[in-house]
Amino acid sequence: MAVQPALSFVRGSQAPIVAQLREFVRFPSVGAQPKHNADVARCAEWLAKHLRGLGMPRVRVMPTERHPIVRADWLKAPGRPTILIYGHYDVQPADPIDKWTTPPFGGEVRGENLFGRGACDDKGQMFAHVKAIEALLRTRRALPVNVKCLFEGEEESGSTSLLPFLKRHRDELAADVAALSDSPMATLDRPAITYAMRGSLSLTLTVRGPSRDLHSGLFGGAIHNPLQALSEIVASMHRSGRVAIEGFYDDVRDWGANERAFMARHGPSDAAILEQAGAECGWGEAGYSLYERTTIRPALTINGISGGYNGAGGKAVIPTVANAKVSFRLVPDQDPRKIEQLFQRHLRKVTPPTVRVAVKTEFMARPALIDRRHPVFRAAAFACRRGFGKPAAFLRCGGTIPVISMLKQQLGVPVVLLGFGRPDARIHSPDERLHLPTFFKSVSTCIYFLTAAARMNAMQADRAREFAT
Amino acid sequence: MAVQPALSFVRGSQAPIVAQLREFVRFPSVGAQPKHNADVARCAEWLAKHLRGLGMPRVRVMPTERHPIVRADWLKAPGRPTILIYGHYDVQPADPIDKWTTPPFGGEVRGENLFGRGACDDKGQMFAHVKAIEALLRTRRALPVNVKCLFEGEEESGSTSLLPFLKRHRDELAADVAALSDSPMATLDRPAITYAMRGSLSLTLTVRGPSRDLHSGLFGGAIHNPLQALSEIVASMHRSGRVAIEGFYDDVRDWGANERAFMARHGPSDAAILEQAGAECGWGEAGYSLYERTTIRPALTINGISGGYNGAGGKAVIPTVANAKVSFRLVPDQDPRKIEQLFQRHLRKVTPPTVRVAVKTEFMARPALIDRRHPVFRAAAFACRRGFGKPAAFLRCGGTIPVISMLKQQLGVPVVLLGFGRPDARIHSPDERLHLPTFFKSVSTCIYFLTAAARMNAMQADRAREFAT
Repeated sequence: MAVQPALSFVRGSQAPIVAQLREFVRFPSVGAQPKHNADVARCAEWLAKHLRGLGMPRVRVMPTERHPIVRADWLKAPGRPTILIYGHYDVQPADPIDKWTTPPFGGEVRGENLFGRGACDDKGQMFAHVKAIEALLRTRRALPVNVKCLFEGEEESGSTSLLPFLKRHRDELAADVAALSDSPMATLDRPAITYAMRGSLSLTLTVRGPSRDLHSGLFGGAIHNPLQALSEIVASMHRSGRVAIEGFYDDVRDWGANERAFMARHGPSDAAILEQAGAECGWGEAGYSLYERTTIRPALTINGISGGYNGAGGKAVIPTVANAKVSFRLVPDQDPRKIEQLFQRHLRKVTPPTVRVAVKTEFMARPALIDRRHPVFRAAAFACRRGFGKPAAFLRCGGTIPVISMLKQQLGVPVVLLGFGRPDARIHSPDERLHLPTFFKSVSTCIYFLTAAARMNAMQADRAREFAT
Repeated sequence: MAVQPALSFVRGSQAPIVAQLREFVRFPSVGAQPKHNADVARCAEWLAKHLRGLGMPRVRVMPTERHPIVRADWLKAPGRPTILIYGHYDVQPADPIDKWTTPPFGGEVRGENLFGRGACDDKGQMFAHVKAIEALLRTRRALPVNVKCLFEGEEESGSTSLLPFLKRHRDELAADVAALSDSPMATLDRPAITYAMRGSLSLTLTVRGPSRDLHSGLFGGAIHNPLQALSEIVASMHRSGRVAIEGFYDDVRDWGANERAFMARHGPSDAAILEQAGAECGWGEAGYSLYERTTIRPALTINGISGGYNGAGGKAVIPTVANAKVSFRLVPDQDPRKIEQLFQRHLRKVTPPTVRVAVKTEFMARPALIDRRHPVFRAAAFACRRGFGKPAAFLRCGGTIPVISMLKQQLGVPVVLLGFGRPDARIHSPDERLHLPTFFKSVSTCIYFLTAAARMNAMQADRAREFAT
């Protein structure tokens, strides 16, 4: 199937496509914040309507316990492979909002970038697949493969409704491979095919002290302060750049010289990572590159601490409670459930008798590792080379997409991650942006990918070997 | 001068006095929060108008760099002592507001209590002096002593404008003693005369990491997290219930067996302090009672920590910055300036090279210690016995009223603290309250105090010895 008409269609439709993207980004579809529940629902309806408009049959907005899942199927290529395309239309909270140059949900275009929370993660990246489908449908009235779209609204809050959804609709979602774009490029002009992601375990730790806020003048020195106890507990979790929880590294897989050399060839240098981070120096576990520390080594990050008075001026208070948001990033063969137990055991060991701690598990996801020898990776590599004019890098990613292990476990499919997110996209940060020339290259890549996937005769389920978890 | 007519006047005016108190409490005069600047100013005007209405001459609202000082003088008793009465009409922030049963600035009366931020600290306590003045003026058209009122609006934020004000108006404020009520009672029915208060040093500590918020999945393990660094820095400040800053205890005065026995007789037991605190167990420096830990021993309290994401759900972020509000309570002979230097030196020692710290000094006040053998204390003790029907306790207080050392240093007067704040008043906490029967006893006590002070022939400046700082 020739791709040129589809590519030309996209070239000729850039203005309306950007207008559609801006509409999409303007929904404040923050799945984690209940105040945005209605915005999330409206965003799902918009997406469904959009899919219907471009000719996808069987478009449905399917309710879940929390946010709806948008589904669409095009299944008119019997005998051809079926590709499940996953994306998420929910976005991270926009905080700290005052650090944005333009409103996070304004969808403003300045220069070559479209600014907005979710512009890159994941609205822009998933829209590349949508526009590839549209271009093929409009120019050929058919797709080269069968396609099932699965767009969820809870990715940024742990994809909790997705697992029961996958279980309930397992047969309906059967596919040969799953493809998704929700990961970074290797460099500003080189896409990445991601074959490993870290798992995650997120917890809220609460330390309680006196039954009410106390005057720190009257009681300071005689009553333990939950903020201080929390700080001491948090401090106990690291030593010399390593996680100091007993047993934490027991199941961490050691990688041989071959894999580490492959990683060094494909992955970013320390300098590149520091530049991306806007940091002057690295930190962490001795004996590993920064790329290794964020991919084949686990990490523990405190995402937030709150307690007491933090407004203007001061307030002489010993607060009754202090909270920390704790998140682990896990690697093969760590099990989030076991790490949760080790964390609880550590807390029992370090918590002084003067305060009480409670832990709420927010979500967990196993690490994911895909066999990069699967033939779908050849199709992906070919598509990237055509779409971007550069060979893709094969990368591990430090982030977590819980859906990857879910798709693998529930549907038994390998997952190919086509990373179209520029390193300077500032995902999860103020002034998140989508670089529009890159976006249009990613649309072309998706067109090539669907076309190449159709030609792959080797895409049998029995080839979907994965070399780990 | 007979006190009975004044006492009767108060007994017969309880309803209007409570109504006035409610009006006073309804001003959200939070001096530390710029958004309340206009409320603070309106509260000062109300207070001045009230003083004029009850017959005080020379009432003035005097501007300062921040919040106005309300001044009033009655100086028609030549040859008699002059009492400077100090109070503050500003209040602590009401946070956490959602923990209040009724609105913090509603001034609601339920049962025997008037609820509201500042109802006890210090609006209710200063109003006892105002009502004593009114009762004497209305019933005798004269006061038994000369009186100078000095009511400020920045006590809860360090009394920063007061010092230049005292310097500028030193002659005009000359007095024999200063009296104020801004401290707790010994028990629910026994007032306290406070002869020592801790000093204070408040700082905001800022830890900065990467130049922008980072995704904790992509960078976790390779970039130092300011929240984690802050926790480690905070944790480094204590060891075994003691402050672990080198040299911190060098200037702390040791007290002999006599003073500690006096303290044990007058002060609260460990059990009483724990009950007041709503805490199950004490904490702190071994070898000292809880009362001693909060009075003759210094303390370091973290009043607030903030950073990262703390809303609903989670956010995978390494924040660019983390903050802590740090406050020291200091005892004789510690110098806040020296402690500030020790703190800075400690920070230089413990801060890792992967983050940058900055310290902002919010305010400082020296510890205060008044010679309890000064004759004004006899007048105060007599007044308490009459007003409350119980002997007052002579106490040290762990809190800080910067004005005490300021008054002493600038005006050269001893300061007597008549503590009318019930231990269950929840000052600085949600549901702060003023127990109205106790309030009316404190009005009577103030009437007795002004009357007894007039008879004191021993109130010469040369007797105003103080045995320390």
